[in-house]
Amino acid sequence: MMIEIYDSTLRDGAQSEGISFSVNDKLKIVKALDDMGIPFIEAGNPGSNPKDLEFFQEIKNLELKHSAIVAFGSTRRRDIKVEEDANVQSMLAAGTKHIAIFGKSWDFHVTDIINTTLDENLRMIEETIRFMIEQGKEVTYDAEHFYDGYKNNEDYALKTLEAACKGGAKRLILCDTNGGSLPSEIYNITKKVGDTFKDTKIGIHAHNDSGLAVANSLMAVEAGAIQIQGTFVGFGERCGNANLSTIIPNLELKMGKTCILEGELENLMSSAKLISEIANITPDEQAPFIGRKAFTHKGGMHIDGVNKNSKSFEHIDPSLVGNSRRFLMSEVAGRSSILKKIQKIAPDIQKDSPETGVIMKKLKELEHEGYQFEGAESTFELVIRKHLGKYKPFFELENFKTMGERPDASSLFSAYAMVKVNVEGKSKMVAAEGDGPVNALDKALREALEDFYPELKKVHLIDYKVRVLDGKEASAAKVRVLITSTDGTRDWTTVGVSTDIVQASLIAMVDSIEIKLLKDIEEKMKAYM
Amino acid sequence: MMIEIYDSTLRDGAQSEGISFSVNDKLKIVKALDDMGIPFIEAGNPGSNPKDLEFFQEIKNLELKHSAIVAFGSTRRRDIKVEEDANVQSMLAAGTKHIAIFGKSWDFHVTDIINTTLDENLRMIEETIRFMIEQGKEVTYDAEHFYDGYKNNEDYALKTLEAACKGGAKRLILCDTNGGSLPSEIYNITKKVGDTFKDTKIGIHAHNDSGLAVANSLMAVEAGAIQIQGTFVGFGERCGNANLSTIIPNLELKMGKTCILEGELENLMSSAKLISEIANITPDEQAPFIGRKAFTHKGGMHIDGVNKNSKSFEHIDPSLVGNSRRFLMSEVAGRSSILKKIQKIAPDIQKDSPETGVIMKKLKELEHEGYQFEGAESTFELVIRKHLGKYKPFFELENFKTMGERPDASSLFSAYAMVKVNVEGKSKMVAAEGDGPVNALDKALREALEDFYPELKKVHLIDYKVRVLDGKEASAAKVRVLITSTDGTRDWTTVGVSTDIVQASLIAMVDSIEIKLLKDIEEKMKAYM
Repeated sequence: MMIEIYDSTLRDGAQSEGISFSVNDKLKIVKALDDMGIPFIEAGNPGSNPKDLEFFQEIKNLELKHSAIVAFGSTRRRDIKVEEDANVQSMLAAGTKHIAIFGKSWDFHVTDIINTTLDENLRMIEETIRFMIEQGKEVTYDAEHFYDGYKNNEDYALKTLEAACKGGAKRLILCDTNGGSLPSEIYNITKKVGDTFKDTKIGIHAHNDSGLAVANSLMAVEAGAIQIQGTFVGFGERCGNANLSTIIPNLELKMGKTCILEGELENLMSSAKLISEIANITPDEQAPFIGRKAFTHKGGMHIDGVNKNSKSFEHIDPSLVGNSRRFLMSEVAGRSSILKKIQKIAPDIQKDSPETGVIMKKLKELEHEGYQFEGAESTFELVIRKHLGKYKPFFELENFKTMGERPDASSLFSAYAMVKVNVEGKSKMVAAEGDGPVNALDKALREALEDFYPELKKVHLIDYKVRVLDGKEASAAKVRVLITSTDGTRDWTTVGVSTDIVQASLIAMVDSIEIKLLKDIEEKMKAYM
Repeated sequence: MMIEIYDSTLRDGAQSEGISFSVNDKLKIVKALDDMGIPFIEAGNPGSNPKDLEFFQEIKNLELKHSAIVAFGSTRRRDIKVEEDANVQSMLAAGTKHIAIFGKSWDFHVTDIINTTLDENLRMIEETIRFMIEQGKEVTYDAEHFYDGYKNNEDYALKTLEAACKGGAKRLILCDTNGGSLPSEIYNITKKVGDTFKDTKIGIHAHNDSGLAVANSLMAVEAGAIQIQGTFVGFGERCGNANLSTIIPNLELKMGKTCILEGELENLMSSAKLISEIANITPDEQAPFIGRKAFTHKGGMHIDGVNKNSKSFEHIDPSLVGNSRRFLMSEVAGRSSILKKIQKIAPDIQKDSPETGVIMKKLKELEHEGYQFEGAESTFELVIRKHLGKYKPFFELENFKTMGERPDASSLFSAYAMVKVNVEGKSKMVAAEGDGPVNALDKALREALEDFYPELKKVHLIDYKVRVLDGKEASAAKVRVLITSTDGTRDWTTVGVSTDIVQASLIAMVDSIEIKLLKDIEEKMKAYM
C-alpha cells in the first residue's frame, strides 16, 4: 500500500532556528525531493512571506517529474469575504494546482487566539475551501491543533472537519501542532476520525516536542492515515517536525508500505546529507538510519557479533538506506578491532604481541589529550606506523612563522606565513599570503613541498572542522581540528589538537601530506606485487 | 504510580562514539543522578572492563541518598561452572547489592553468535542468576534481544524468562537491543509477557535505531512495565539508548506517573546539561523538553499566539522542566519581535517607522554574510544602536598585529599579539603572549583598555565557539565565532564573522567590551531615574 509523503522542509522547516533558505537553496531542495519521488512539496506561505511568493514564480520554470508543489496558507480572516482576503489572493497568485488551507480545530484557539466565534470559524474553513475549489484547486485541510482540540472538545473538533468536507477538501490532515500527544492517543483519535469520515483521505502532521513525532506518524498509519507530513531531516520550529528520513524507511522496510520511487531508498542518506548541507545544518550523527553513527559499533562484543552475522546487532542492512557499517577503535572496542588496523600494516603482529599493548597505551594517551581517531583514521595509521618503526617522514618542518595585521583602522586584515622545510638535507623557505594564518600556512607549506613532491599539486583541502574542547577556558581552550583532503581520486582525514588553532591545523596538515605521499608509494608498490 | 528509572549512562552510554569517561567523570554523574532520585544506576561491566572494576571500588566511598548502584554482566560462558567464570567473579568483586545479568533470549543469537545449544543457554541463565542470589544479591535479568527473539521464536523467548524466574530474578527486562521494533509490537509483546509472568516486575530497555525508543518505552508502560532503562541524555551505541530526559517528563506530566523526587523535574534541563558537559558532548538543541530550542518561537503567528496564551503553541510550561521560552528575530519572525528589541533602545519607534525597515534590511545583509544573532543578542543590540545613531564607541582599535612562530623543530610554538587602542585622543600600545594568536590578542586588547576602563579587569571569556560556515572551501572558508563573556554578575554573547578566525574573534571581542562598558553606564543611569 502506498503512503503519501508530504514534505514541508521549505515551509515548516524554514521556521527552524538557524535556517534561512535562499531561492536557489529552495530550488535545489525541490529537485532532490522530486528525484526521490516525494509526491507533495509544501513550498511556502505566499501570504505571510513575500519571498515565498517570488519563489512560486521561479518554480514554475522547473520541470518536475514526480512532485506536486503545494501553496500553504490560512483560512480567510474573520468577518470578511473570502475573495477580499489578501492571504487567500496570495495563495492563488502562487499558481499551484494544490493548496493546503490550515484552520483552527481547537475551540480554545478560536475563542482566545483569533478571537472569533465557533460558528464563524466553521464558516471561515468551509468558505475558504469552497472558494479554492471553485478556482479549480485541489485542497487539503490542515486541521491545526486537531488532537489538542479533540481532547478538549471532541464534538467541535469533528465539526471543523465536517466544514472542511462540505467545502470540498480532498484530504483532512490531523495536526499535533504542539507535539504534545502520546502514541496511543494518536492511534485512538485517528481511528475515530477515519471511522467518521470514511470517504475522505486522512493524514497526520506531527511535531516532536515529546520526542514522539515518528511514532505518532506510524501509529496514525496503523489507524488508517494515508498521508504523513513532515520535513525530510526533521527541521522545524522548536523540536522539529516529524522526521521523514526516519519515517520512510520504517514504513518501507518494516511496515510493508511504499512511499518513494523504487530504488530511491538507497539514496536516503545522501539526500538527507544534501538537504542538511544546503540548510547549513550539521547533520545529527546519531540520527536513525542516516546518521554517521547509526551503524557504528564500539563495544567489543557487538563488533564480534556483527562480524559473525550483521543482524545480530543491526536492525536493518545499512546499505538499504545508503549508509554503511563502521567499527571504532577505543578502549571499549577491545584489542580485536585495533589489531585489524595494525595487521593491515604489519600482518605478523598478534593480539598478545607487546606492540599491540604499546599502541593501545599511546591511543589512550592521545585520547586523553583530546585526540579522537573516529573519522580521522589516517592520523591513526601514522600513529601505528611510528610505533612500529614503519615510518620515515617525507620532510621535516624546520620552522614556521605566521603574522596577521591590520596596520590602521581603514585597512583590511592581512595574514602571512613563512615556512622552511627540509627534504633529505635540502632546505626550502617559502612565504605566502592567505585568508588568515591557517590558510596562509597551508599555502606556504604545500608550495614549499611541491618542488620535492610535484604530486602534491593535485592535493587540496575539502573540509576543515574546528571543535573547541573545553569552552570554559575560552580562547585558551584546546581545539581539535579535522582536515579532509583530496587528490581528486581519494579523500582522507587527519586530526590535530593544540591550545592554539594554528598549531592544531598545522599538525593535521603535516599528517595529511605525509599520508598522501605514503599512499602514492603504496599504490606504486602494488604494481610490483 | 511509581515507574522505576534505571540509568545506564555509565555503561551503555559509554558505548557511544566519542564518549570516554574518567573515574572522576563517573562519580560526578552518579552524584547528579542520585540528587534527582534516580533509583538505579548501572555503573559498568566489571568483567569486560578493568577500569569499571576500579570504579566500583571508588564508588563504595561515596554515600548515596537515593540511588542503588548496579553491576552489569553476562551469564556464565557455556560449558563451565558458574563459580569458575571470570566475568561472574568480577561482578561479585564489584560488591554491589544489585546485579543485572544479561542473557540471550533470541534463539538465533544462541546458536549462531555464542554457538551453544538452546538448552545450555537456559541453564546459563538460570544457574548464573541462582548463584548470584545465593551470594545475597538482588538480580535483574536483562533479556537481550527479547523482542526480536519473541518475533522469531515466541516459545523459546518466553522459556528464557522462565529460566530467569526459576533462578530467582526479581525483574525481567525486555530489551529491544537492536532498536528495530515498532510501538504496537512492543505493546503487544510486553502485554503478553506481563500476562504470563504476573508475579515478576517487567521492564523495558529500548534503543533508538528506528527513532522509536521513547515511544516504545512509554508503550511498554501502558502495557504494564514498571521499569524503564535508558540513558539520561540518550547516549549509547549507534543511535543511542532511550532518552530518559524525554521519558521522565512524558511519564510525570502526561501519564500521571512518578519517577524522580518531588521538585526535581525542574532540574531536568540543568542535569542534562551537566551530564552532556561531563561527557563533552554538545547538547542537542532540538531535544524535547531540555533542548535550547525546545520552546523557541520563530514564526510571527506563533510568537503572537504565545504572547496571548502560552498553551497555544507550547505543550507544557517550559519552567516545569527548567527550560525557558525564547523568541527569535528573523525575517520569518516578522517585524513585531524585532520592534520589541528596537523599542527597548528607542521607545518611540513604531512598526512602520523608516528605521525599522532599515534595521531589518541590515539584519538580512548580515545574516547573508554568515551572522546569526540567535544567541548573540548583544551584537544585535549594537547593530540597532549604530543604525539609530545611539552609539558612541568607547575606544578605537588603531592597529593590531599577531605573530606565531616555531623557530626550530625542537621549540614549542609561541604566539604574540600587539594592539594599539585610542580612547578620546590618547593612544596606548600593548603586547601580550598567549596560547595562540586569538588568546594573545584577547589579553593584549583588555590590558590596553584597562588603563582607561578599570572595570574591564573583572571581565573574562567563559565560552568560545567556532563554526566553519562552508567546509567546502576548507581553510579559506568563513568562520563564525561566538564569544560569551562575564563580569561575575552578568553573561553576554557576541558574534563575529570573517574568512579569518583571528579577525572573526576580534570582531566579537571588541563588541563584547563595548557591551560591557555600555551596560555599566546603563546601570549607573538607572540610579538617577
